[in-house]
Amino acid sequence: MPGNAFGQLFRLTTFGESHGPAIGGVVDGCPAGLTLDAEAVQRELDRRRPGSTALGTTRNEPDRVEWLSGVFEGRTLGTPIAFMIRNADARSGDYDALKDVYRPGHADRTWEQKYGVRDHRGGGRSSARTTAACVVGGAIARQVISAAGVRVSAYVQQVGDVGLTEAPVDLSATWNNDARCPDAATAVRMKALVEQVRAEGDSVGGVVACRVEGVPAGLGEPVFDKLEADLAKAMLAINASKGFQIGSGFAAAGMRGSAHNRLSQGGVAGGISDGDELFFEVAFKPPATIAQAQHARTRSGDEVVLEAKGRHDPCVVPRAVPIVEAMTCLVLADHLLRHRGSRL
Amino acid sequence: MPGNAFGQLFRLTTFGESHGPAIGGVVDGCPAGLTLDAEAVQRELDRRRPGSTALGTTRNEPDRVEWLSGVFEGRTLGTPIAFMIRNADARSGDYDALKDVYRPGHADRTWEQKYGVRDHRGGGRSSARTTAACVVGGAIARQVISAAGVRVSAYVQQVGDVGLTEAPVDLSATWNNDARCPDAATAVRMKALVEQVRAEGDSVGGVVACRVEGVPAGLGEPVFDKLEADLAKAMLAINASKGFQIGSGFAAAGMRGSAHNRLSQGGVAGGISDGDELFFEVAFKPPATIAQAQHARTRSGDEVVLEAKGRHDPCVVPRAVPIVEAMTCLVLADHLLRHRGSRL
Amino acid sequence: MPGNAFGQLFRLTTFGESHGPAIGGVVDGCPAGLTLDAEAVQRELDRRRPGSTALGTTRNEPDRVEWLSGVFEGRTLGTPIAFMIRNADARSGDYDALKDVYRPGHADRTWEQKYGVRDHRGGGRSSARTTAACVVGGAIARQVISAAGVRVSAYVQQVGDVGLTEAPVDLSATWNNDARCPDAATAVRMKALVEQVRAEGDSVGGVVACRVEGVPAGLGEPVFDKLEADLAKAMLAINASKGFQIGSGFAAAGMRGSAHNRLSQGGVAGGISDGDELFFEVAFKPPATIAQAQHARTRSGDEVVLEAKGRHDPCVVPRAVPIVEAMTCLVLADHLLRHRGSRL
Amino acid sequence: MPGNAFGQLFRLTTFGESHGPAIGGVVDGCPAGLTLDAEAVQRELDRRRPGSTALGTTRNEPDRVEWLSGVFEGRTLGTPIAFMIRNADARSGDYDALKDVYRPGHADRTWEQKYGVRDHRGGGRSSARTTAACVVGGAIARQVISAAGVRVSAYVQQVGDVGLTEAPVDLSATWNNDARCPDAATAVRMKALVEQVRAEGDSVGGVVACRVEGVPAGLGEPVFDKLEADLAKAMLAINASKGFQIGSGFAAAGMRGSAHNRLSQGGVAGGISDGDELFFEVAFKPPATIAQAQHARTRSGDEVVLEAKGRHDPCVVPRAVPIVEAMTCLVLADHLLRHRGSRL
Repeated sequence: MPGNAFGQLFRLTTFGESHGPAIGGVVDGCPAGLTLDAEAVQRELDRRRPGSTALGTTRNEPDRVEWLSGVFEGRTLGTPIAFMIRNADARSGDYDALKDVYRPGHADRTWEQKYGVRDHRGGGRSSARTTAACVVGGAIARQVISAAGVRVSAYVQQVGDVGLTEAPVDLSATWNNDARCPDAATAVRMKALVEQVRAEGDSVGGVVACRVEGVPAGLGEPVFDKLEADLAKAMLAINASKGFQIGSGFAAAGMRGSAHNRLSQGGVAGGISDGDELFFEVAFKPPATIAQAQHARTRSGDEVVLEAKGRHDPCVVPRAVPIVEAMTCLVLADHLLRHRGSRL
Repeated sequence: MPGNAFGQLFRLTTFGESHGPAIGGVVDGCPAGLTLDAEAVQRELDRRRPGSTALGTTRNEPDRVEWLSGVFEGRTLGTPIAFMIRNADARSGDYDALKDVYRPGHADRTWEQKYGVRDHRGGGRSSARTTAACVVGGAIARQVISAAGVRVSAYVQQVGDVGLTEAPVDLSATWNNDARCPDAATAVRMKALVEQVRAEGDSVGGVVACRVEGVPAGLGEPVFDKLEADLAKAMLAINASKGFQIGSGFAAAGMRGSAHNRLSQGGVAGGISDGDELFFEVAFKPPATIAQAQHARTRSGDEVVLEAKGRHDPCVVPRAVPIVEAMTCLVLADHLLRHRGSRL
Repeated sequence: MPGNAFGQLFRLTTFGESHGPAIGGVVDGCPAGLTLDAEAVQRELDRRRPGSTALGTTRNEPDRVEWLSGVFEGRTLGTPIAFMIRNADARSGDYDALKDVYRPGHADRTWEQKYGVRDHRGGGRSSARTTAACVVGGAIARQVISAAGVRVSAYVQQVGDVGLTEAPVDLSATWNNDARCPDAATAVRMKALVEQVRAEGDSVGGVVACRVEGVPAGLGEPVFDKLEADLAKAMLAINASKGFQIGSGFAAAGMRGSAHNRLSQGGVAGGISDGDELFFEVAFKPPATIAQAQHARTRSGDEVVLEAKGRHDPCVVPRAVPIVEAMTCLVLADHLLRHRGSRL
Repeated sequence: MPGNAFGQLFRLTTFGESHGPAIGGVVDGCPAGLTLDAEAVQRELDRRRPGSTALGTTRNEPDRVEWLSGVFEGRTLGTPIAFMIRNADARSGDYDALKDVYRPGHADRTWEQKYGVRDHRGGGRSSARTTAACVVGGAIARQVISAAGVRVSAYVQQVGDVGLTEAPVDLSATWNNDARCPDAATAVRMKALVEQVRAEGDSVGGVVACRVEGVPAGLGEPVFDKLEADLAKAMLAINASKGFQIGSGFAAAGMRGSAHNRLSQGGVAGGISDGDELFFEVAFKPPATIAQAQHARTRSGDEVVLEAKGRHDPCVVPRAVPIVEAMTCLVLADHLLRHRGSRL
């Protein structure tokens, strides 16, 4: 079964390769009658854009959402909402040298092992560029769940060895700095670290945290489609993510029950939201592409030395914040609709 | 959409409440022609059984799998394989006192918030007993993937503050001790900790690790049904789990790319298996039910003091090992079949 | 993807071979809080039973539904409702002669072509006996849709060349006769025809019609899951059915628009119910098993002469009436729940 | 659950309103490595186009498929294949008069009953124009199944009271005439009838037949996803269709088993293809829009007299032929892939 759709009732199918004609998606199942704020969607997309933060790649993509269907006179029709983003200005020729090389830490080789063929330009479908379609879908989902009072806020919790030491009280400052960290002092230190790493031609990992307020009790479909299970899947579907934890997470492993029972459960119990704030964290690895010479293998098995040219992200975490939010919105919109079938 | 089925092509639907007539499941999509070793399935179920390890509850459930369909003369027919396990000897009366009380750290309240009604006896459908059906389904899946050379081995990595300090070389000793830890010396310390915790009337959390050898390259369906995304969902669907990490996991957040690129990716790249060993870890919280007085709320909002009677697990981690293996087998059997559609 | 589940939100998965240990099913997605009338379910099953009408086989199966989960103190929990029916008294030995023979007009050969293995006893999974699980699932669905005021009534419209010449006014007499025909005079003629056909060692086909009153406007999910599309699938999934038509059906092909526009549309327009009565018809072929010598092929390709022994249905149509109703109830329960997601 | 996707493994999601920016679709699950003949796809789309036959509307839509993703250097990547067709030259203003009127025999009212909102221009999403996306998806599917030797050929069997009296031997002439009928003499009579009906300001119904050669034995997933069940759903999902029959169809109702057993089963037995030619028929009603004054209702319940302006189809059947073929190709591509999971 193909894997390019996410959600059961609020269902986003995405398409597109990094350097093909366009990327985009179709939302099937968005309820009718929503006044869709298209500019708000565009703003969310702008926040994911390379160049939106000084800590990312310096490449610029002036992505504009083009709406193809599902909205009439500003309102959703209940029919599929299709959208696309043109891949303007893709300099495909830049990638000719990579046609027969598998970059270390990338998915070049596995995609070819799976499909026997791949679009090698910029990672093709495995490019993080494809997450732009998730951001658009998630922005639509956000408008659905906002109508139910749900607010999703992600932020950077950790970059390399620089992290928040306590839970931030106020998240409103997240978007005021390039690090997407709600604490100004920590943001400064994160930024300094990323710039140092960039100067070294290296990259660094990090953690994005996410809080969801206003989640009604009762969301989640046990026993397999538990709310935290669907969130975990959503987060591990994001490029470069390596871990997910909710509430006490891995720290719970070291705790006694007598202490743990006094903590928040992260907003879920038995797979169902309990009305408390949801809280979870996602770990991201350092980007594989660095400005240092690395050994790589060609299709025929020869070893070559690769040196990344062009502009790359030394740290994906700030730009992952809107993606974590988008995937969270998709999960919650889906579960809000699924919950409607729970009782007679 | 209901949430009691797992997998797309190899699909397990489970049913049953802890103290209802039976629990069980239906596997739809098991390929025809498999010689099903029913006794091997029963042995896997026995490993999950309360009483299978001295570190669990002392309750005894002599669960026997009863096969209802899908197998003829020892071979699978390609039709649904249904099975059930009778809930023998359920002393439902024991639970009368809990009819109107929500136990702290349990799902009593959220299930009632969702459905407006619940079977309060032993947690009903939210009971860990329901994982027995996953173990049976997983044991069938294991026989499917074994035929393709895939071997799944989980073990206890950490209990409270006692953990393995390096990756175990040999996993064959995992089942030789009650801690389900492949290192004998660590197992002794884990066991001592659990016994101490039990004596204190408390409970403790832990981590289960899982290795999968022999996974062919190419499994996983990007962009959403990445292999690690489906594994993450599977693990967070297990009762009491709070986190998942693959390969470098949360440690990646603190690393530089130059160092990280030299590590294993945990067996996946871009959502697709790369032919290396899969490695991931799952965090479990300490059981909420402890032998100490705890404050609880009744349906009408009154506060009461609960003192757990009867026999409970001070640590679920040893008994979670077969469940982690089972869910892993389900994911891999599904993806093995899904992969068959990848190429013309 | 396996094919033993039906419905999206109200989802019935069935299992079982004709002569295996049991047949049964799991309903996932039945809303919580329904007071389930188990005796009404049993009565529906009794109406499908061989022996329930003198026009069917004289074999007797005293099928009893055994409930396994999902119901507590008489009410649905929102969890999977599993049930089974034991295959009592299956004289498997009767079928030894058929082990290597493909009966003409049966699915013996195609199942073996698909799966490479089959349970030859009584048709195995291809037996009409498996529809008993649909009847139970449909009876649960009926209780869900009854709560919304929907009433489903099927009846025999035609047997061989004996048919109703005008639409019956009153359907209450359907169950008063063995032909399941609401018009007493026609029922007598149908019964006479079936008895004559039986005496000749032959069989005969027929048509079942179905009316649904009280369907609210708005059910159906275009463009592919139109209400009539899902009904068509449901009907063609019934053993021995060969055709489906709704409203004017095949007669529409011969009509002018000026005349057709004055007719009822059969209760749907553009795939969505319009609030009128639903009306559709299903064609059934004559049973392939007849008491006359027939030529058949063995697995090795040899021709043999088969003479059916034992007791067989000369006409399936009367016993198909409860199955048509059951499948209709499943479609409508599913669409009632799906419709809940249509608007914000 | 939303209804705009069709198929499980070869899955087409369509989008678009008749007078919105574009219509189109996404095929998820097309195997990698197919050399996609884009011009062949365009030719199939041209055959559905208004104006492709003199018997249809005289409106002209020079639809061009624009490819957005999934194909690289002429070959499928295994990633989603997205495509769109711009809605050029939509004179939306023509429809202002229909904003508050429900046209008789159309879906205007039911769509509004379901969603509370609709795009009234040209039927919006309920327009037959949306089938263009099915034709493109089906044309891709045809290339997949052609590689397996499967050939799908539909033709007009009946228009009003003019029909083929025996099965055509040679289907190669189907596209040589405006009636899409393989028999030249019958085609002439069909064409005369349609022109007469048009002159009368009326419309007429008809029947499309479909033959599929080269279907391997073993396709179909019982018990619910029988091959004929999925075909029936596919056909009833086509606009204006009212009935489906396979093999002997409704004629079987009047037959004896002794005679019926000597007939072809239409290519299926027990829901699984038997290696014979598939044969089925689909009934279409006469178009509701006619050039005669008709009574209609407004949203507020007032009665008005409508007289269709502009150009309309007096008979949809010739233009339904490529749609029947497309939906058939989608079903078969899906089942070819699903069948891959049948055996170990």
